[in-house]
Formats: sequence, structure tokens, C-alpha cells
Amino acid sequence: MDITDPDASISSAEPKPHRGLHQKVFVNRNLTLENIRCYGFDMDYTMAIYTSPDYESMGFEMIRDKMVSIGYPHEILRYTYDPSFPTRGLVIDTKYGNLLKVDSNGNILICSHGFRFLKGENIAYYYPNKFIQRDDTDRFYILNTLFNLSETYLYTCLVDFFTRCTRYTNQEKGYQHGDLFMSFRSMFQDVRDAMDFIHNTGALKDRTIKNLEKYVVKDPNLSVLLTRIKKVAKVFLATNSDYNYTEAIMKYLLETNVKSGSPKRLWHSYFDLVVVDTRKPLFFAEGTVLRQVDTNTGKLRIGTYTGDLQHGTVYSGGSSDIVCDLLHVKGKDILYVGDHIFGDILKSKKRQGWKTFLVVPELAKELQVWEERKNLFEELKLLDTFLAETYKHLDSGSKECPDISAIQTRIKVLTHRMDMAYGQMGSLLRSGARQTLFASQLVRYADLYSSTCINLLKYPLNYLFMAPPVLMPHESVSQPAAGLVSSELSEIVKITTS
Amino acid sequence: MDITDPDASISSAEPKPHRGLHQKVFVNRNLTLENIRCYGFDMDYTMAIYTSPDYESMGFEMIRDKMVSIGYPHEILRYTYDPSFPTRGLVIDTKYGNLLKVDSNGNILICSHGFRFLKGENIAYYYPNKFIQRDDTDRFYILNTLFNLSETYLYTCLVDFFTRCTRYTNQEKGYQHGDLFMSFRSMFQDVRDAMDFIHNTGALKDRTIKNLEKYVVKDPNLSVLLTRIKKVAKVFLATNSDYNYTEAIMKYLLETNVKSGSPKRLWHSYFDLVVVDTRKPLFFAEGTVLRQVDTNTGKLRIGTYTGDLQHGTVYSGGSSDIVCDLLHVKGKDILYVGDHIFGDILKSKKRQGWKTFLVVPELAKELQVWEERKNLFEELKLLDTFLAETYKHLDSGSKECPDISAIQTRIKVLTHRMDMAYGQMGSLLRSGARQTLFASQLVRYADLYSSTCINLLKYPLNYLFMAPPVLMPHESVSQPAAGLVSSELSEIVKITTS
Amino acid sequence: MDITDPDASISSAEPKPHRGLHQKVFVNRNLTLENIRCYGFDMDYTMAIYTSPDYESMGFEMIRDKMVSIGYPHEILRYTYDPSFPTRGLVIDTKYGNLLKVDSNGNILICSHGFRFLKGENIAYYYPNKFIQRDDTDRFYILNTLFNLSETYLYTCLVDFFTRCTRYTNQEKGYQHGDLFMSFRSMFQDVRDAMDFIHNTGALKDRTIKNLEKYVVKDPNLSVLLTRIKKVAKVFLATNSDYNYTEAIMKYLLETNVKSGSPKRLWHSYFDLVVVDTRKPLFFAEGTVLRQVDTNTGKLRIGTYTGDLQHGTVYSGGSSDIVCDLLHVKGKDILYVGDHIFGDILKSKKRQGWKTFLVVPELAKELQVWEERKNLFEELKLLDTFLAETYKHLDSGSKECPDISAIQTRIKVLTHRMDMAYGQMGSLLRSGARQTLFASQLVRYADLYSSTCINLLKYPLNYLFMAPPVLMPHESVSQPAAGLVSSELSEIVKITTS
Amino acid sequence: MDITDPDASISSAEPKPHRGLHQKVFVNRNLTLENIRCYGFDMDYTMAIYTSPDYESMGFEMIRDKMVSIGYPHEILRYTYDPSFPTRGLVIDTKYGNLLKVDSNGNILICSHGFRFLKGENIAYYYPNKFIQRDDTDRFYILNTLFNLSETYLYTCLVDFFTRCTRYTNQEKGYQHGDLFMSFRSMFQDVRDAMDFIHNTGALKDRTIKNLEKYVVKDPNLSVLLTRIKKVAKVFLATNSDYNYTEAIMKYLLETNVKSGSPKRLWHSYFDLVVVDTRKPLFFAEGTVLRQVDTNTGKLRIGTYTGDLQHGTVYSGGSSDIVCDLLHVKGKDILYVGDHIFGDILKSKKRQGWKTFLVVPELAKELQVWEERKNLFEELKLLDTFLAETYKHLDSGSKECPDISAIQTRIKVLTHRMDMAYGQMGSLLRSGARQTLFASQLVRYADLYSSTCINLLKYPLNYLFMAPPVLMPHESVSQPAAGLVSSELSEIVKITTS
Repeated sequence: MDITDPDASISSAEPKPHRGLHQKVFVNRNLTLENIRCYGFDMDYTMAIYTSPDYESMGFEMIRDKMVSIGYPHEILRYTYDPSFPTRGLVIDTKYGNLLKVDSNGNILICSHGFRFLKGENIAYYYPNKFIQRDDTDRFYILNTLFNLSETYLYTCLVDFFTRCTRYTNQEKGYQHGDLFMSFRSMFQDVRDAMDFIHNTGALKDRTIKNLEKYVVKDPNLSVLLTRIKKVAKVFLATNSDYNYTEAIMKYLLETNVKSGSPKRLWHSYFDLVVVDTRKPLFFAEGTVLRQVDTNTGKLRIGTYTGDLQHGTVYSGGSSDIVCDLLHVKGKDILYVGDHIFGDILKSKKRQGWKTFLVVPELAKELQVWEERKNLFEELKLLDTFLAETYKHLDSGSKECPDISAIQTRIKVLTHRMDMAYGQMGSLLRSGARQTLFASQLVRYADLYSSTCINLLKYPLNYLFMAPPVLMPHESVSQPAAGLVSSELSEIVKITTS
Repeated sequence: MDITDPDASISSAEPKPHRGLHQKVFVNRNLTLENIRCYGFDMDYTMAIYTSPDYESMGFEMIRDKMVSIGYPHEILRYTYDPSFPTRGLVIDTKYGNLLKVDSNGNILICSHGFRFLKGENIAYYYPNKFIQRDDTDRFYILNTLFNLSETYLYTCLVDFFTRCTRYTNQEKGYQHGDLFMSFRSMFQDVRDAMDFIHNTGALKDRTIKNLEKYVVKDPNLSVLLTRIKKVAKVFLATNSDYNYTEAIMKYLLETNVKSGSPKRLWHSYFDLVVVDTRKPLFFAEGTVLRQVDTNTGKLRIGTYTGDLQHGTVYSGGSSDIVCDLLHVKGKDILYVGDHIFGDILKSKKRQGWKTFLVVPELAKELQVWEERKNLFEELKLLDTFLAETYKHLDSGSKECPDISAIQTRIKVLTHRMDMAYGQMGSLLRSGARQTLFASQLVRYADLYSSTCINLLKYPLNYLFMAPPVLMPHESVSQPAAGLVSSELSEIVKITTS
Repeated sequence: MDITDPDASISSAEPKPHRGLHQKVFVNRNLTLENIRCYGFDMDYTMAIYTSPDYESMGFEMIRDKMVSIGYPHEILRYTYDPSFPTRGLVIDTKYGNLLKVDSNGNILICSHGFRFLKGENIAYYYPNKFIQRDDTDRFYILNTLFNLSETYLYTCLVDFFTRCTRYTNQEKGYQHGDLFMSFRSMFQDVRDAMDFIHNTGALKDRTIKNLEKYVVKDPNLSVLLTRIKKVAKVFLATNSDYNYTEAIMKYLLETNVKSGSPKRLWHSYFDLVVVDTRKPLFFAEGTVLRQVDTNTGKLRIGTYTGDLQHGTVYSGGSSDIVCDLLHVKGKDILYVGDHIFGDILKSKKRQGWKTFLVVPELAKELQVWEERKNLFEELKLLDTFLAETYKHLDSGSKECPDISAIQTRIKVLTHRMDMAYGQMGSLLRSGARQTLFASQLVRYADLYSSTCINLLKYPLNYLFMAPPVLMPHESVSQPAAGLVSSELSEIVKITTS
Repeated sequence: MDITDPDASISSAEPKPHRGLHQKVFVNRNLTLENIRCYGFDMDYTMAIYTSPDYESMGFEMIRDKMVSIGYPHEILRYTYDPSFPTRGLVIDTKYGNLLKVDSNGNILICSHGFRFLKGENIAYYYPNKFIQRDDTDRFYILNTLFNLSETYLYTCLVDFFTRCTRYTNQEKGYQHGDLFMSFRSMFQDVRDAMDFIHNTGALKDRTIKNLEKYVVKDPNLSVLLTRIKKVAKVFLATNSDYNYTEAIMKYLLETNVKSGSPKRLWHSYFDLVVVDTRKPLFFAEGTVLRQVDTNTGKLRIGTYTGDLQHGTVYSGGSSDIVCDLLHVKGKDILYVGDHIFGDILKSKKRQGWKTFLVVPELAKELQVWEERKNLFEELKLLDTFLAETYKHLDSGSKECPDISAIQTRIKVLTHRMDMAYGQMGSLLRSGARQTLFASQLVRYADLYSSTCINLLKYPLNYLFMAPPVLMPHESVSQPAAGLVSSELSEIVKITTS
């Protein structure tokens, strides 16, 4: 027995086959794991899960403090991060300072101005069609990643503060203070700049590295998973982070794990290929020059490595095409696991035809709420059936006009109640019966999704992930008669199970 | 009683409230008809349904003959239109001459070369990833409309002919014949040019107008529908056709309907606004100059009408914004009924936030097949359940490897059997359990859809269309316990039904 | 002696070596004819010079009549073409209906509204900076070709008519007439459409072909030129016209020329390659599919010819790259002779590095006026010197302020007098001391230019065209001392002349 | 007398009216200073002239050292900056590692690979047409500014080193060294990154500020010029530099100048408006948010100043439109003085119609060489005349073929001799008789140019700058007869001088 094999050594901790709801991997499109010849992993929020809400709090405080240091009023220092407010996937309207939750067509589901939620006619004042043209990326900014949560909340705090502060006069596009006008747009720009500042100067990374135990979740099963996968397929890591940060995080995740007495296994050795500084989504298009990283110094080698792939070599830059070349695999044979719906999943799928696995940490809570409040959703469905009954015998010539206002009110109440169970901005994925933009992108671009990539452990690596059948409205109208099992099927069942 | 009201005069023919499956309007997103202040209609394949397959046959023969007249071999005259082959929404790969059916991510579901269907490795020869980058519109051409069916089929005939004709040598990108090379790309261009020719010279329209009874389906309920709608909302017609053709078609549809003795009602009078030459999808963006049409001569007036909207006035050009201005309505108050998923539905929805109703004439057949073969789909679902059971007690550490090849073969057989029930290229909407690009666009962009707009007659004009709940994979895993009806709901039911 | 050689047979008509000013070819950049391995010719306004103003008059009348037929008032039929008004290269401002003459930076030199010329503050009303952003091609339309002259004039007539017609009220962006508003933009669109109509329906071409003697200038020297060139280099024809028109024109130019008794020489035989339907400027970029033309029927062969170049074969479509391949020449070895500053010259130069020869028929008149009125220009120069003297002893600290208003007035008078000598809109190339956009493009992109391509006859085909030295302002300040001839030069002179 | 007025106090140093060639301002297009209502100045290389070659040497050494620190061989430390090699306006071909000097059409005038100059067929190997498509900005990088000189030279050193170093194998697109391939492209990227590093980290600025006396030329006449201009027009400063650097430089230029006893005048007070962080060329398009700078701390105020313009207020960001608004001037009333042909001059001219003054420090040397070697240019002209004579009596039918090879050789010799007088890459503005891309842009976009903006001092502020007449080739053929002065002119002369 190879004692360096974590799979072997920690077998006592081996996860049980039975899969609870939280351990499940969900399926949007059928995927045969047996055909996957190569697994790719993003690092941040994929292999490295940051502790929530501690990590977001730290980010929030750093940009908040930066804002004050560039001249924002000291009063905003009083705000602290409230994890119950922001949801991923919201949209900032930089023109009017609103925070929007929208569906895939740009219809507005929820709209807040600071912490004030706008209703009906107030929304119509800003958006007569209750609709935004998402393509106008100059005006609308989508907060797609978990990293964005702290700035989502900070922007909300700023709008809250200035709206209520008597020194400032509220105007349509910002605030007036004496001779100074502060537009929602410039406030947004300041928040973005502060965010870039703490990322680019390495300030956020420095603090994270100094407090790894506090900010990064370590799961011993990660090394088990990587070890098992590497036995059947190639494995690579592709992260937008730089080498030094990647080194610190991966060391912590994979090397500080060993029992006393076990020989140390280097984190590089879990991968066939490690690529840092990938600049996704550019990585999935033309990419950048591929450089080798000197793992002793963390510096880039000048020139591009052209020899055969050497185990444990770390690269910087490159592109998804180069990865395929180096590993001798095709796009459809790759399962890429990442957390960024746009940069990791949409682009790898649309541009390269990769198979995709989206890590959605929020799913743990989403599932819990869904379980607890499913009765609300059931009631929504019943109301639907009831409405259908109400109109059943009417057509366009009928004079009769049923009063459905009570039902409609009830639908709104139920929707709000469901939303609130998730948090103030509601669920990541829906608002009542309507799915969010994020949900629709998840369904379109991610073949698989789960709250953590570790859940792959629960499935045999030749598993056939089957998507639940998605019926179109016309197909789901009449429920099928109890399916008579065909004789061929009976035969197959016999063969397979024997 | 106003005897010019067709609603009144043909009351004996009034449709029955009970809605059969084929008379249903299906719902992707909830929509309250009561809130709709304005209905817009496209003409071709929306109000004017062309007789299938007669109309496609005529188109096919005209472009086929045109091809011969520009030098294509006389042998192709032997081909006649076969309605069982083409499906709407297919994609021509102009590089390799293949006809593709793809899903929303560009994964290939079916691939034919002429009438030969390619399998596994043959598809992989052309498309190593079994995937196309749909964005490459230079190379891939999507046949989105029913008008495209004849050219879809003609292109297939050409590939079939040249592939089998011994005078030509098959090459990767076309055919060699002595010193001449005929690329798949140039053949595609020739078909497109021929198609444009019969449309732009008016040849197709002339023949249609001369044989209205043969080529255009007349439904007396159209006037009933328009009359009823006009009582509660504004109605406009927006068509890319020119005035003379519109006049001929609409006269036939709405004016040749009257009982002897009834006073004649002009077709214009059914609409608050008629706009021809709309140049959709440009119409939903910047549009063109709005001109008035002199309905006596069919010629455009020079200059733009700036007065109040006059009943029965016909315009040419303009834009969706102008229509909103003229009718004093907002985008969200408009329900637009059209047949073109891109030009009518996607653009009006994405750019303007209109409510949308997609007319899908194929739906009649789709529903019929679905009903007849639903057992195949049921069996597919059972196989899924069975597979899940097979793997239930396994995880990534398991050595056991169930043999599921029989199941997979069976899935392929069932999928193929379902596909063939629709036609040689399968269903418009799915291939086995996977939805087509067309289906995914229909679900995303059309709020409502039905096989004909006449089906609106079956619903009261204050109807609340409710979408069936769409569960995401993680939501649909565990079926809810039989919903206990909340006490509030019981109360509502009481109120509403009393 | 080969009696089919027109060079030989019409030797009596041989042009004399001495080159008058009107027979000169002018040089913007040095060009060694000896290095030219291939000559390309456009047809329209290059080999085929259309009789001016008869041809423009015909075009004017056809679009004028078309305008009336689509509803413009019959009064405009009274306008006839006035060749003294329009100049090539003007710009229509479709927003305000003005006709502009601009320099290469977009500064306005002349501005007319109908036939009224705007002055100072009136120009400033529309263009506060006396400047337009030429990049705004949605608003500004440049009338680059001689074909555009008739529409330039017609648009001016329309603005003149409606401005003065009492039935219409003048507004900033057009005219109001009762409920109708006619914008300058829509008038422009109507003129463009009418122009496209007479071109696309072949109406203009039909009339031209029926009156070749009247509308096309036949110069017997064309065949001499082509014959001589073909002895030393390859020759091709590349025209946007279709085959039938090209055939008619070239036959007339080259085949109807022979003395009785001479055997007939086909026009194709003057060229190594003939390409019609070139769709320049697209031809100089990606181009279109290359097809062979069946010269018996004028129809396109299906498929692309792939064999060796056959003499006299006619092609349709293609691209400049294909021409280079077929003729085995490189871009820098080609001298392309055309009349379209953008489509022929700028694009072939910028995209492909071809040598370029711009045919500028107006140059005959430009040269004549320049000769006659050079004294005006001399006086302008004197005024400059005089001004310089006036300020000679002043600097930024001087209190003295010379009164130069008389000089400035005089400069305006002289400029206007020069302009009027060319026509109402002035010269094609300059306005006083300032060059037009057209002139600056001519200087930048055309290596050679002349009033007709026939002038090439006057130069040996190994000629070294030398550009006159162009001094920058700082170089031309001090006139050089009478050049002492270096001893090397004396030596060279001796060798060369001996 | 106002003793704070430097114009008054340093009158003894007042420049003499007589203008030597080096003190002249040259004119491309007439410009009446009297009409200028507002003067704008860039700072770097415009008001602040950096000492050459000391400043370039410092930049060179900083990026060279940075290159070594990221892994480039220590041998390159041996290179030191050689001011005789690089010229501004060269183009790097990142594909082949060549340095190119091109004309405005992309024709190659000079090509070097490292320090080796390529000739004829070697150039043709890389560029078969001796021509580049400048639009391909992915491949070609234009070194437009004086800041680029050091990187131009460093890139040349790198190519020189690796080409000659035996450890590396030369390949078409770079160098191979064992398993490493170093492409010309990646070397270029490394140089660019190093350049950005020393600019963005402030390293270059820090050193400059610490050695102002060494690196920045202080001219006491600058304050005289600004004082005089401010009496007759508005003055603003618009620089891409940040506030702290601007403050340090401007203080040095304008505040350290005073005689003992004179009261100190703040540098802000010379301007009506100071704008830092302008991000030209973006500044001339949509620009960025305008912020106020707190001149005590150098930090930005949050929010935008909306009150009236206050004297001495410093702003950050904004746009040219905002500047016009704040100063109440129109684009055509502004003379903008800058050193960047693209960012300052082309954009302000093309986008905004501003009058432009290009500072070309190299002009001092260019003028000197031109004066000294004008005889070479004269000889080139004589050769031209002589060639014309040679061919005078020949035409396309002539059999005679003069031998002009001696002349052509002589032309090459003279061109090379002229080029070498300027430096190894020749003149900034020409190569023999041909103008560079830089020269053609200077002529097109700069109304005025001079070696320093201080030269404006030599002209009265109501001066009429007259451009020397630019004749087109056909206009310059025949020299005009000695101009008879018209009687009107005589009259004007009398009036003006009396």
C-alpha cells in the first residue's frame, strides 16, 4: 500500500456512498463521467472555499476604509457587513444608483435604492417598462462573483448613507452638497477602484495568507478527490491568481494535511499541469503568451517552454487551446470545475465546448430553505391550478369576469415570504415562480452544479449523470398515463442487474 | 345589434370554450391579458398561414428552376419537395455542406450530408468536439423561418446530387469537375441568391396572389378575434411585406368573408395602425423613416405624417419606438404576435421589453406525435430512474463498475424512434431528452406560444396565463409531500368562487 | 508586320512625344514604370469616359423623373442639369440639408443650402466650429464619384424648390406641409433610392448602350496603349459592372475601331484577365467567390475555375488576392488605373500596397483655369509675403497692432474670384490656398494622376516618374543658394548622356 | 508697474523680435492668433522639456535593469543608451522583431533587425510588398512619443544581443534556447511591461523629481509667455500626469524663478484652469468623471465640482467638452499646444476641431542638418530635372532606352548620406525625398509646429500665421510668370503701410 496515497491513508474518513441532498451533484445536461479524460479546476471559491461571511466582511472593511481614505465621510465607517442582505448576480444601475435583481430577459424582479425596496410605481418611475437592456454594459454592472458581494453591500451602504444624510440633497442621478455633485456613477467608479486597489496591491491576499485558518476552508477530502481523479484522468489547475498566492493557498489545502509520519507530498504533484495568471475569460479566447514559472522564486521565466509537458511544471498565461495541446485532449473530453458563471463556465462552454461544473456555495442554503418552505411553492402551484379552473369555461367572447385579485395578492404574499426566507434580496436563483438571470445562465451553461466540488467524491468516476427531463409547457400539460414498461426495457433491466 | 360586427353576425360559428390540446396557448412566463393595452400582429405565417406543404413546394420549385437557369445541371429538376425531411431551425455549415441540428450551446444533435445521416466518428471528422461556435455567422447559417424550409431542402438535394453524380469528385470543401471547383460555400451562396431573387422580384408573391385559395389558409375566426380584441385594446399590424402584397393578403383574409347581404368592412378598419415595410429586426432598433402609404396607388407619400393617428392610415417603415408613440403605449403593455423567433420575438423582447406570442404552426404535429409517443419518453424517464438506482450505492472509491451499455443503446434507440416519428430530421423542439436551439429560444423569448394566433379566441381577454412551474434540477429532486393547503388559501378559494 | 497590331497600323496617328500640360501624367510619389509587371484598369470613367455633361444630364433627368413618379411635386420637372454647379467630392449633411465642401480635417470651406451660399454667422448657426466630424457617416455622405454629380445637383434642386415653395414651411431639419413633415434626411434617402433604382434596374445602362456614340467617348489611342503595355507587362480589367454592360462598352471602345480590311480583334484579347462584378472596395478585402463567365450567354458558370489562366477568360467576383495569384504578380508590381478615389485608389493602396493611377477627367478644366488665373494665386502669395513683412519686427510683447483688415478682405476676394473661375462650388481641389478633402486624398493615395489614362502613351514604358520635391514648411523657409553641382553629379551627367 | 508681472520685471531679458530659423513657428494651415480665445498646454515635453539624452538614458537604464530583474541575461546590462540610433515615430513589427521606418501609406523606408540594417531582398523576405498594413495594431506598434525612445532602443539592444549570442538559435519568430522559445512578441511584451512598470509605480517620476535640475530644462521665458497670453486669452493646462508630479514640475518651472525680493507667484495663477489625469486621447472623446483635486493633500475630492470656475482650482479627469463648457469657449477658438502627435494633436483636431500646435524638440537638429546638407537635397532635385530631360523626347512607342542606372545609384547614395547626417535611423521627417508617417501626420493635423512652445514669444499675439502655398504636382509644373502686381494690391499695400 502506497502510504502517500491520501485515498488509502485516510480511508477511515472515507465518505459514505449514500448521498444526502447537500451532497448531491445536480444535472442540467446528461454527462458520462466515463468519457471525461481530463478534469480542470479553478482555485478561488472552487478548491479554495473562503469562509463566509468572515471573508466578505474582511473585503467589505478594506474597501470601506479605502473609501474613507480617499475622502468619503467618516460616518460610513459605522457600517458593517450584513450577510443577510446581498445576493450574488445582482445588477447595479450606475445611472440611478439602484440595485436590481432581474430575470434572463432583463425584467426587474426586485429593485432597491440603498436599503429601501421600491414598489410598483416607484420602479416604474425609473424603468417605465420594468425592464432593462442588459446589453448596455456601460450603464449596468453585473455582480457575478462571490468576490463582488462586499462591493454590492458597500455600494448599498453608500446610497443609504447619502440618501439619509441631511447635508446632501437627493437628485435623480446623485447627490448635491454645496458646489459638489456626487453622481451614482462616480460613486460606483470609486467603489470599483477601491475594489481593484485591494486586489491589485495584494492587500486582500496578504491578509488572507496571514490568516489562512480563519479565511480558507480546508477539507481533507480535496486530496482524496484529486488523488482518485488522477488515477483515471488528467488533472489541471487554471487560476487567474498569481503564483505566490496560488502556492500559499494550495500548500495550505493539500500539504498541511498529512498525519505525522507520512511523507510529505507536494501540492504540484496532484496535477498534470498548473497554470496561473490565466486571465479568464481571455484564456478561453486568444489568451496570452505562455511562460514558465520558476517555482523557487515565483518569477516568470523569460521565453516559452516548448518541450514535453513535465510533471509539476507551473505555467503562467496561455490559453485553453494551449492546455488542450499540452495535455493532448479535446474540449469535449474536459470537465472544467469553476465558480464564475461568466469567466469559467459560459466562456468555456460557448467558446470551447468544454463540459462544465459550476460550484455554487450558496446552494447549501438554497436547498435548506427550499426544503423548509416547499409548502409555499406548493401553494403557488395550487393557486395556479385554481386559477385555471376559474377560467376553464370562459373564452374571449365571455362577458363573465372572475375576480382574481385575492389570488393575485396571495401570490405576491407567498412570493415575498419565500424571498425573505433566503435573505433580503431573496434567493440567488428565483423570485417566486420566476428564475433569475443567474439561474437561467446556470441552467444554460453548466452541465453539472453542486455546492462544492468535493461532492464529486460521492459518485463513481464512471457515473452517468442524467438530467431530469425538462418538459416544455405544451409537453407538460397532460400528465402521462402510468408508463407501461416496454418489453425491451424489462429485458434490459434484467441484463443490467444480473 | 351592429350587423357589421362579425363577432355578432357569425355567432353561430362561435368557438366552444372547451379547449382541446391543439387549441391551447402555452405559457413560458406568466402574463395577465388584462394588462395588455395593445396587440400587434405580424402578417406572414401569423395571420396569414400558408398552406403546407403546397406553399413550400411552390417555393422549392421556383428556386430549383432558378438554379437550373443559372447553370446547375438539369438533373436536379427531378427533385421534388419532401415535407418529411426538413425541420425549421436547422443550421447549414457552409464550409462542409452539412445540415446540422444543434442545441442551445452549439452541441450537434443530428448531422446530415445530403440525405445521408452521419454517425459518431464521421461527425467527429468534421467536428472533433461535436460542437460548433454559433457566433461564426460567416460560416453557419440558421434557417429560422418557415420560408427557409424550401431552401433547406434544396440545398440538401444539391449536396445529394453532386455527392452521387459520377461526373464530380467529392472533396472536403466541395466538388471538382474538370477545371471547375464548386465549393459548398458557393452552392450555398447560389441558393441564397436564388431565394432572394424569387422574393425580391416579387415572383413568389405574384404566384401566391394569383392562387390565394390554394396557398393561403382562410379562417373566419380571424375577424372574430380582431374584432373582440379591438374592443378592449389597440391593435396594429407590422409586417415586412410591402403594401400591395399586404393589401392583397389582408383583403382575402378579412374582406372576402362576408355573408351576402352584410355590408362590406374594409380590412384596414380592423386595426388602429398598419405598418408595412417594417424591416424587422431593424424595426426594433433604430428603424427607418416613417412614410405614409397612399392606399389608392400603393405608393409612398413623400414626407412623414406628423398629425394625430388617423384610423385606417397605412404607414411604411418606422420603428417600434414610433409605434409606441403613435399608439401612446409602453413596451410592456404590448403583446406582439409573430412567427419569426429572431426577427419578431427575440428582438422585440430583448430590445424593447414587449410581451411576445410566438406562432408555431408545426406545434399541431408536434403535439400529436408527443401524445402518440409519450410512452417512449416515459420509458426514457424510467431508464433514468433505473440508472440512478444502479449507481445508488457507489461512490468515487468504488471498484464496482456496472455495465450500462445495454441501457445506453436502448436510450439511443428510443431517441431515434421518437425523432423519426416527427420526420427525418426529427422534432423542431427536441432530440430525445435534449432540446434544440429553437426550443431554447422559444422558451427564453416567447411569453406565450401556440400553433395559431386564433387560439387566443379560446381565452377571455382578461385571462391570467400562468406558466407551469419550472423547477431547477436541485429543486425537482425530492417530490414535495402532498401539499397541505394553507388556511389563507382555503379562504381565498372561498372568496373567489363565491 | 503584324497588321492586327493597332500600334503598327495606325502609326500615322501616333501621338507626338512632346507633352503638353494636358497630356501630362502628374506624380505624387516616385514610380519606376520599368518595375511595373502588371497594369490593371477599371472600366467606367477610366477606359470608358462618359461624355460630360450629356451623361450627367441623362442621369439627372432619370432620377428627377423617378422622384416625381414616387410623389414629388411636378414642379421639379422644370429643373435641368447645370454642369457649372456641382463639383465632385462634396458632402451632403443629411441633417440640415446642406451641401459642404470641406478640407481633409473636416473644416468647412463652402456651404450651400439649395443654391444659396451661406456666409459666416449662417454657417456658424449650423456648425459652431465651422467643422464636421467626417467619421459620422450616418449623417454625412461624401459624393466621391462622377456618377454622384447628378444626385448632388438633384438634391440641391430639391432643397431650392422646397425652401422657396410657399406651400411648405421651412424648419431646421426639413419642411412642413400640413400634416406632413419632409425631413432633409428622408429627401436624401429618396434621392439615393432613386439613384440605386436607375442603376440596379439597368435603366441607365440600357440608355447608355442604346446611345453609345452620344454618351461614351471613343479614343482610338486606347487600343494603342493597351497593345503597347501588353508587350511589356500583364494587363487586366477589373470592373464593378456586370458582364453584359462591360461587353457592350468594351466592344464599342476596342472593336469598332478597325479600318476596313483589318481582321477583327476581340476586345478580350487585349487583356490577360477580365474580371467583372468585382464589388470594389470589397474586392480589395475578402472579396467574393470567383466565377467564370460564359461569354456566349453572359451567364455565370457554377463553380470556380481552378485551372491555369486561359487567355480571354472572363471572371466574375473574386478579390485582389486572387488576381495576384492568377497573374503571378505581387501588389507592388501592379499599377492600378481607376477613377474612384476611395473604391479604386485608397483601398488598393492601403490594403494591398498597389501602385495607383487616378484618372481625374476634371483635371483638363482645372489645369486650364489654373493657367489662366495663376496671377490670382501669385497675388495671394504676394499678400502673404507682404503680411510677413508687416509683422517682421514685432513680437508677443509689442504694443503695435498693424491693421491688416484690407489685406484679409483682399484675400477673400481673390479666393472667391479663383473659386468662381472653376464653377459655383469652386475647384475640385482647392478653395483659395486651402486644399479640399479630395485633393488631400489624391495626394496621399494616388501615386500618379492625369486627366485620362491615355496620357500614359506619352511616356516610355520604362519611364521613371519623379515626384516634385515636397518641402515641409520649415524646409521651404529659406530658399537654397543656387545649387553648386557636385563633381559626382557632373560625372553622372556625362556618362548618362554620352 | 506691477512687479509681480514677470513680463515687466525681466524686461532686460526680453527676446529680440528678429526671429532666427530656430526661433520660428512653422505653419501648415493659416491661423489668425487674434481669433484664438483660449490657449491649452500639455505639460510633459511641451512646457517641461526633458534634458536629452540624459532623460532618455535614465529611462533606458531603468527598464534595462527591470528586464534583468525579471530574468533577462545579465549581459544586457552592458548596453548603454546611444542617442544617435533611435528616432521617434518608428514601428516595431512584433512578429519578426524588426524596427521599421515607414511612410504614410505603410511603405517601408528603413528596416533594421537589431543594429543590422536590412537591404533589398532581405526586406523582401519579410515584406514581399515592402509594405505593411498599419491597421494591424495587434502586430505593429508605433513609437509615437519621446518617452518611447528608450524602449525603442532597448528592444533593438535585445534583438542585437540574442541574435549574436551563441547560446540562442535564431528562428523566424524568435530565439530557441534548449526547451525555451523566446518570441519577438513576448520580448516586446516584456519591454512594454517594464516600461509600464517604471511609469506606473512612479519610479521614473520619483527620480525625475529628485533631480529636477538635471532632467528638466527650465526656461525663464515660459512665465513671460504665459503672462502675456493670459492678458489676451484664457489659458489652461491639460496633462495626463497626476497632481503630485504636475505640482512638482510646474513649481520648478514657474515658481523657482523669481528674483530675490519679488513676491512669490503660485504656478496655479498662470492658468484659468488646470486639469490633471486627463487620459488623453480618451479626454477628446467621452472622457472620465471630473473631480476636484484638494491641492493641499493632492487627493481627489469625491464628487464633481458644479459651481463656477474658480481661479486656481485643479481638476482631475473630465473631457475636452467639459473644458469648453467651463471656459465658455468653442473648439475652433482654442489653440492646443502639445507634443503627442496622436494623443494631443490628431485627436483634438479630428474629434473636436481645435487649432493645434505641435512641439517637436527634434526640430532644432532637423533644421541644423537641413541647413548644412541642403546641397544634397538640391542635387537630388537637379537629378530629377536631368532625368526629365533624358526622357523628354521619348514616348511609349520609343525603342530608345536611356541608361539611368548611374543616376539611380547616385540618388541612393545621396539619400543615404542625408539620412546619416541625422542619425542611424535617419531623420524624424524624411528619407531622401520621401516623407515619413510622422511627417505626414504632422502636416495633416498640426496647424503650427516649432521646436518649443516658447517660440510663440517671438510673434505678436494678433499674428496671422500664413502657410506657405502648397502646390499640387500639376500646379507646380510650370513656374508662374513674374507676378504683375494688380492695381488693387498696390492700393492695399499703400493703405496698410500708411
